[in-house]
Amino acid sequence: MIIVMKTDSNLKDTGSVLKKIESLGFKPHLSTGARKTIIGVVGNGKKIDPEVFLVLPGVESVVPILHPFKLASREFKNESSVIHVNGVSIGGNEVVVMAGPCSVENRTQMLLSAETVAKAGAKILRGGAYKPRTSPYSFQGLGEEGLKLLKEAAVANGLCTVTEVISPRLVDIVCEYSDILQIGARNMQNYALLEAVGKTSKPVLLKRGMMSTIEELLMSAEYILANGNPNVILCERGIRSFEPYTRNTLDIAAVPVVKQLSHLPIIVDPSHATGKRSLVNAASRSAIAAGADGLIIEVHPNPEEALSDGAQSLLPDEFTTLMHDIRKIALAVGREVC
Amino acid sequence: MIIVMKTDSNLKDTGSVLKKIESLGFKPHLSTGARKTIIGVVGNGKKIDPEVFLVLPGVESVVPILHPFKLASREFKNESSVIHVNGVSIGGNEVVVMAGPCSVENRTQMLLSAETVAKAGAKILRGGAYKPRTSPYSFQGLGEEGLKLLKEAAVANGLCTVTEVISPRLVDIVCEYSDILQIGARNMQNYALLEAVGKTSKPVLLKRGMMSTIEELLMSAEYILANGNPNVILCERGIRSFEPYTRNTLDIAAVPVVKQLSHLPIIVDPSHATGKRSLVNAASRSAIAAGADGLIIEVHPNPEEALSDGAQSLLPDEFTTLMHDIRKIALAVGREVC
Amino acid sequence: MIIVMKTDSNLKDTGSVLKKIESLGFKPHLSTGARKTIIGVVGNGKKIDPEVFLVLPGVESVVPILHPFKLASREFKNESSVIHVNGVSIGGNEVVVMAGPCSVENRTQMLLSAETVAKAGAKILRGGAYKPRTSPYSFQGLGEEGLKLLKEAAVANGLCTVTEVISPRLVDIVCEYSDILQIGARNMQNYALLEAVGKTSKPVLLKRGMMSTIEELLMSAEYILANGNPNVILCERGIRSFEPYTRNTLDIAAVPVVKQLSHLPIIVDPSHATGKRSLVNAASRSAIAAGADGLIIEVHPNPEEALSDGAQSLLPDEFTTLMHDIRKIALAVGREVC
Amino acid sequence: MIIVMKTDSNLKDTGSVLKKIESLGFKPHLSTGARKTIIGVVGNGKKIDPEVFLVLPGVESVVPILHPFKLASREFKNESSVIHVNGVSIGGNEVVVMAGPCSVENRTQMLLSAETVAKAGAKILRGGAYKPRTSPYSFQGLGEEGLKLLKEAAVANGLCTVTEVISPRLVDIVCEYSDILQIGARNMQNYALLEAVGKTSKPVLLKRGMMSTIEELLMSAEYILANGNPNVILCERGIRSFEPYTRNTLDIAAVPVVKQLSHLPIIVDPSHATGKRSLVNAASRSAIAAGADGLIIEVHPNPEEALSDGAQSLLPDEFTTLMHDIRKIALAVGREVC
Repeated sequence: MIIVMKTDSNLKDTGSVLKKIESLGFKPHLSTGARKTIIGVVGNGKKIDPEVFLVLPGVESVVPILHPFKLASREFKNESSVIHVNGVSIGGNEVVVMAGPCSVENRTQMLLSAETVAKAGAKILRGGAYKPRTSPYSFQGLGEEGLKLLKEAAVANGLCTVTEVISPRLVDIVCEYSDILQIGARNMQNYALLEAVGKTSKPVLLKRGMMSTIEELLMSAEYILANGNPNVILCERGIRSFEPYTRNTLDIAAVPVVKQLSHLPIIVDPSHATGKRSLVNAASRSAIAAGADGLIIEVHPNPEEALSDGAQSLLPDEFTTLMHDIRKIALAVGREVC
Repeated sequence: MIIVMKTDSNLKDTGSVLKKIESLGFKPHLSTGARKTIIGVVGNGKKIDPEVFLVLPGVESVVPILHPFKLASREFKNESSVIHVNGVSIGGNEVVVMAGPCSVENRTQMLLSAETVAKAGAKILRGGAYKPRTSPYSFQGLGEEGLKLLKEAAVANGLCTVTEVISPRLVDIVCEYSDILQIGARNMQNYALLEAVGKTSKPVLLKRGMMSTIEELLMSAEYILANGNPNVILCERGIRSFEPYTRNTLDIAAVPVVKQLSHLPIIVDPSHATGKRSLVNAASRSAIAAGADGLIIEVHPNPEEALSDGAQSLLPDEFTTLMHDIRKIALAVGREVC
Repeated sequence: MIIVMKTDSNLKDTGSVLKKIESLGFKPHLSTGARKTIIGVVGNGKKIDPEVFLVLPGVESVVPILHPFKLASREFKNESSVIHVNGVSIGGNEVVVMAGPCSVENRTQMLLSAETVAKAGAKILRGGAYKPRTSPYSFQGLGEEGLKLLKEAAVANGLCTVTEVISPRLVDIVCEYSDILQIGARNMQNYALLEAVGKTSKPVLLKRGMMSTIEELLMSAEYILANGNPNVILCERGIRSFEPYTRNTLDIAAVPVVKQLSHLPIIVDPSHATGKRSLVNAASRSAIAAGADGLIIEVHPNPEEALSDGAQSLLPDEFTTLMHDIRKIALAVGREVC
Repeated sequence: MIIVMKTDSNLKDTGSVLKKIESLGFKPHLSTGARKTIIGVVGNGKKIDPEVFLVLPGVESVVPILHPFKLASREFKNESSVIHVNGVSIGGNEVVVMAGPCSVENRTQMLLSAETVAKAGAKILRGGAYKPRTSPYSFQGLGEEGLKLLKEAAVANGLCTVTEVISPRLVDIVCEYSDILQIGARNMQNYALLEAVGKTSKPVLLKRGMMSTIEELLMSAEYILANGNPNVILCERGIRSFEPYTRNTLDIAAVPVVKQLSHLPIIVDPSHATGKRSLVNAASRSAIAAGADGLIIEVHPNPEEALSDGAQSLLPDEFTTLMHDIRKIALAVGREVC
């Protein structure tokens, strides 16, 4: 941590910063320039909140040198983590595809969806039973009934399952039915929920908030890891920008950035990132080319009847084409889609 | 709602849109231009999800005409709502100031804070007992003990209280101690929490998410209203932009926009919006000038010792000056700070 | 400047950074922590590009300590600059209002506009003769004829003039007719143009780019100052964000930030910042309350006939009300609108 | 175009809108719903500015139905354009790579750069002779001397050239030496410059502004096309967002979006989009996978000595690896790098 003093700070100001540093068990390192004084805080292994210094008189800014996350960092664990889900490995050489409808709507829809995505090569079935919707008047999901239909369709087709959990009190029941617990973008900083899933041992798919930085995503992963659950899979799903043409802006560089900063696997959600069916294939190809460990894609046997996200859901045929296309990209980057 | 057909759509596409509209009990209104066909959906009072049409073949886009919120809209209730909190009215002629430390830390700090802010003219004491922190390693608040200290200090100084609730299971206990329930920016779309506070009758201070549009803020208010609680106070607290100098970008225009779209009161949080003590006074003046119904401000008797947000907390003297300054602005816009 | 070394950098890397620093005539200051090595670069008064170090092996990041602008900074000139324009002073105690139509359209429109705004208390007449339009098919302005009409209307009503210059080759002719040269938002980083106006002695109204940081705005001012023209007036006119309701997001905090960082005056353009007539009054009040030195506002005698920006142009009556309203705010902050 | 009337508009308001539509030679199409009146404007082939209606009393909003660009649209020209540059074709089956240093610095640097990039498979040599720099104190380029060195190095290695033109008065001289004229991101809406290059017949590489929408990029292309020059190559180079880790946010979805909306070729600049050498390879792979027609990449024989952008410039070896990697991706999407 480096403390930069204001140009018009005085010796007393500097003195009280030095005293504060020592009182916390750290060693100060003073550099006095022609116009600026800067003070390095030499570490003792513990973390300090920049605030502690920022409030002292004469301090202009505090520059953190270390990342604020620890367990999630590649410095802490150099080897890439592979998360095992019922025989499927995420973060290894294989590119894993999760697919299915936005919402679980009924038994036929789920069985058809599962069959379609399994046949095309997906390994994990997605489908929302509890839906966080912007409007209180929109379809909110089937609840436990939805979880049952999701599981039934998955089992019948040899697939694992992923579904969203939206409240700490629902963690137990979602654990009962699903192989992976999804934390949605709107809940990325719902710390009560992060703690609750951190206390289970289920793999957690943590989606990046639509206006969260990569560092904040890793800090939310840190909450889960610090609560004892090491099985975190990150997901880039598009961020908000000024560009109105797409629903969100796919931050494709987040993939290699996360790979550099963290040992955790990262997948991409091209459906929410673009919001348009016609862009999902190109976005998926770019994700695999950039090094993503997998994809999560909305597919619906009959999007015209979908209760949510129909416009970004692929038709079965489009999904089959997509799997074909990303297989070639995976090979080009030395990986495979089984 | 207006449906715009693609340039290369055909008669069959148009036909199936018309059929869909009628099947939902609405009346279609067809306009065929030189290059584009557009279809108006004439309402029957019910809401339709744009998705229903967006997924049909040949449809290019769907343009909603009505706002998606209803109970929160000024069309629904033309008269401005005034929220009554233990003798304090928010949304009336008076400009109401909520102030106090970011976190409740100890009894002395709270008593000193309460005395300071009450003397300067604040009516409501703020202080966090449950703190949503980006890092799992930061101070997370004193919990129920904090609620007690907040209430004690408030009562001793004739103030009301506002404090954040971060999980549905904490709603009951926070209701017990606090006059206003705060929903923090990170939880603006935590629907389980919105429903929980919507089922109480306590006034709710709903902060805009740093990534949320004004429309989404009003939709989150709609969740609370639709669950039966009409006492919602909105809060603009800065949004994220590319500008790095301030912690957030205060969207000052949100104040008059909300006043036009909704009957609910809106206050401004200049502390989080700017993140810098030296900018809080100017931001507060601009908020009152723009028509805000109040402010929520971080004040700490000794920011250098604060456990959180010290750099943006005002010193007691600075707060007294601020109250003096906004009193003059309030008068200039025909209102008063009592 | 502080150089942070990568965790896995070695002694050779550190050595070559030290050598580089010395070769440039600076003094290095080494701090070795438990996990990180940081090196302060102690100045000799000259500026160094961070790039010089960023490219060396083992370097993680370079943290600049000093602002990159100099002549524009308050450290360089502590006293606030007052720009004198034909008897009007901008940056002093008076709040100065520039007003008029977006585009100069014809003689009647200009004479009516000038009379209206002069009567209400504006001091400077605006009106575009050269219009930078997003579409090549939109009205591009009357050119020199427009300059003549602008000047005639201003002189007849005792007003000064401000108008945009969009190309270096037009600087001479615009200087001939106008008291202030405006650099539009889209040209804030058109350096050929900044240099051209920097070589005149006319006051320059420099609008912030909708995509530019405050620091970049001050760097563009630095171009003009460094070319010899000290008469720069800055203008905050809204930046781009994800919020779609307003045309831009008025960054109101930019006003006090600029006042802290720079000695140059700053005004606000509430018309472009909001894009909606109904929001201009509130935005103007907030600007003056925040400390702005003036406003530039679009007013049209008959917005329904305007060739550009009609939807954000005030009607004459609305402008008169606005002048009345900001007069009260100006008094509340100890200033005046003459 | 669709005109939405305010809920409280009256018959007189509607009448004056209808009259306006007819006076402009269009046909109105009225739909009256339970709560809203909407009016379709049925086209006569001409464009109307939405402003014309937006300013009328009672009008709430105006929704454009057609894109504002014409010559650049795929509706105007369905077949993809291929731009021919001295034997190199951009927009055809081949993926074309432009590479070289940020700035032309000296003869040795250029000869080395040209040899390196030619050997690895690039077809076009980049290098800035006129540099638009944020700071007036940074290196501004060698000017005409730089153009000569660029051309010499290119010719000696069988390469074409691309270099930036920053002012209308420099268009002639840049045309003399360079095969492609580059319009930089900061000048994307410098209309005087767009008109000047539109009057030549040289291919123009038009970079997207860092805060410009895809529609605005296509409107700037329209300026060049409307001035008679059909040879426009678009370039996505990252946009501004709140994410601080990368210099910009690569909007990868812009590639397929542009392909859908326009017939013009589009390439990607992974160097400016990410700003970090370690991310350029992944970003390049994702661009080709998404369907880009080429890349423009900064390569420097000795980045440690570069006068600009060293931190994002690839070393010769890294560039060779990149060419190898994208060759495989190109094949996976059915294209080739010759």
